[in-house]
Amino acid sequence: SGAVEEAVPVRDSRAATDARLIKTENNVISAYETAVKERHSVAAQLSDWGEATGDDMVSDISDKLGVIIAEFAEIEDWFASQLEDSRSVLKHIRNIEQGVQPCRDQKAKVIDRIAHLRHSKPEAPEIVRLEQELVRVEAQNLVAEAQLTNITRSKLKESYQLHFAAVQERAEKSIILAKYGCKLLDLLDDAQIGPGEMSQGYEGEGAARQTLVECENELARWKPESEQMSDEGSL
Amino acid sequence: SGAVEEAVPVRDSRAATDARLIKTENNVISAYETAVKERHSVAAQLSDWGEATGDDMVSDISDKLGVIIAEFAEIEDWFASQLEDSRSVLKHIRNIEQGVQPCRDQKAKVIDRIAHLRHSKPEAPEIVRLEQELVRVEAQNLVAEAQLTNITRSKLKESYQLHFAAVQERAEKSIILAKYGCKLLDLLDDAQIGPGEMSQGYEGEGAARQTLVECENELARWKPESEQMSDEGSL
Repeated sequence: SGAVEEAVPVRDSRAATDARLIKTENNVISAYETAVKERHSVAAQLSDWGEATGDDMVSDISDKLGVIIAEFAEIEDWFASQLEDSRSVLKHIRNIEQGVQPCRDQKAKVIDRIAHLRHSKPEAPEIVRLEQELVRVEAQNLVAEAQLTNITRSKLKESYQLHFAAVQERAEKSIILAKYGCKLLDLLDDAQIGPGEMSQGYEGEGAARQTLVECENELARWKPESEQMSDEGSL
Repeated sequence: SGAVEEAVPVRDSRAATDARLIKTENNVISAYETAVKERHSVAAQLSDWGEATGDDMVSDISDKLGVIIAEFAEIEDWFASQLEDSRSVLKHIRNIEQGVQPCRDQKAKVIDRIAHLRHSKPEAPEIVRLEQELVRVEAQNLVAEAQLTNITRSKLKESYQLHFAAVQERAEKSIILAKYGCKLLDLLDDAQIGPGEMSQGYEGEGAARQTLVECENELARWKPESEQMSDEGSL
């Protein structure tokens, strides 16, 4: 990876990387939120477009495809909110790290003072007092660093567990929607009509509506694998 | 749906709805392309951040999580390109519709001239000639309208078949990545360490690397259901 290590203490580099990561994750979320908004527009406009063709079959199917697209948008919206939750968990790490900084600063200050006195007044009684202070401050630092290590590991894990669970749910629901979208397309009879042939009156509206109903039902029944397994366990 | 029908011929409304739909779909694609770019940044920055913690376990796991995130970005990039292909198919419809417009205009013009002459010079021999022209022009229009109907239905179907196939592939590959992402997280030992405890030397690098290798292999083996079924058929 590309972190430039100069004579900069690792903590500055860490604060900088924290800030960059959290900011960029926000950019990801914003991009998905834009996609959501635009997909909702596509859903409505697809319906308008279909109606404007004056072809009853195209009008009905495109209207219902619009419903499917709107459902996709809802899932992406939920996904973006899960990314936000995941990002918030990482912010905990940054907060703890900011809390540890004063400890580190205090330790550095005591070390500096000891070094300075050893150089200028090596007999000063203050050195003994400072050395005792250093022992206490180092103990505090060890606790703080252990806390930071523990928080970092557990929050990194928690953040990405949220992230991957959201990916999974979004994917499984997308598969359901795509399946019913394809069933709608099967109702679109694209057999060629000849000039002047009145295409047979469109009679697929009921079947198309039923497809949407079944889609909604299957989405409503969806549950994460862990819940499915505990359902089976309790049967 | 919300198309306003005034004294505007349906063809104007259709051209307007075509244009809006195609434009908005472009906005969707741009939003996903932005998400791709930002997710690639997150992947790199996650790795940098992990290295900056100075914790070998966190550094290794976050680096490998970064690889997973970069793979997600690749899938989204591919998905955006499929949306672009799907959108291009719809543009065919608009092109055909634009080609039909001259026919419609010509028919309207002949009808207007006949009406004008019937009002001003009802005995004009030109009326008979124009009526014959109208018959030919109407025949041409019937062919054009049938072509448009056929193209509209088949391209709508083709466009959304592409779209839903892309949704399906993106979803199935996302599930694979999330699964291996979770396996990486399982290697992240978040058992609490106490102050001053040297956390045991991190020895998970091999297991983590192997997890990524297995992930890459499973992604490479992925194929659409239709190909899987034909494989089984040929066994």
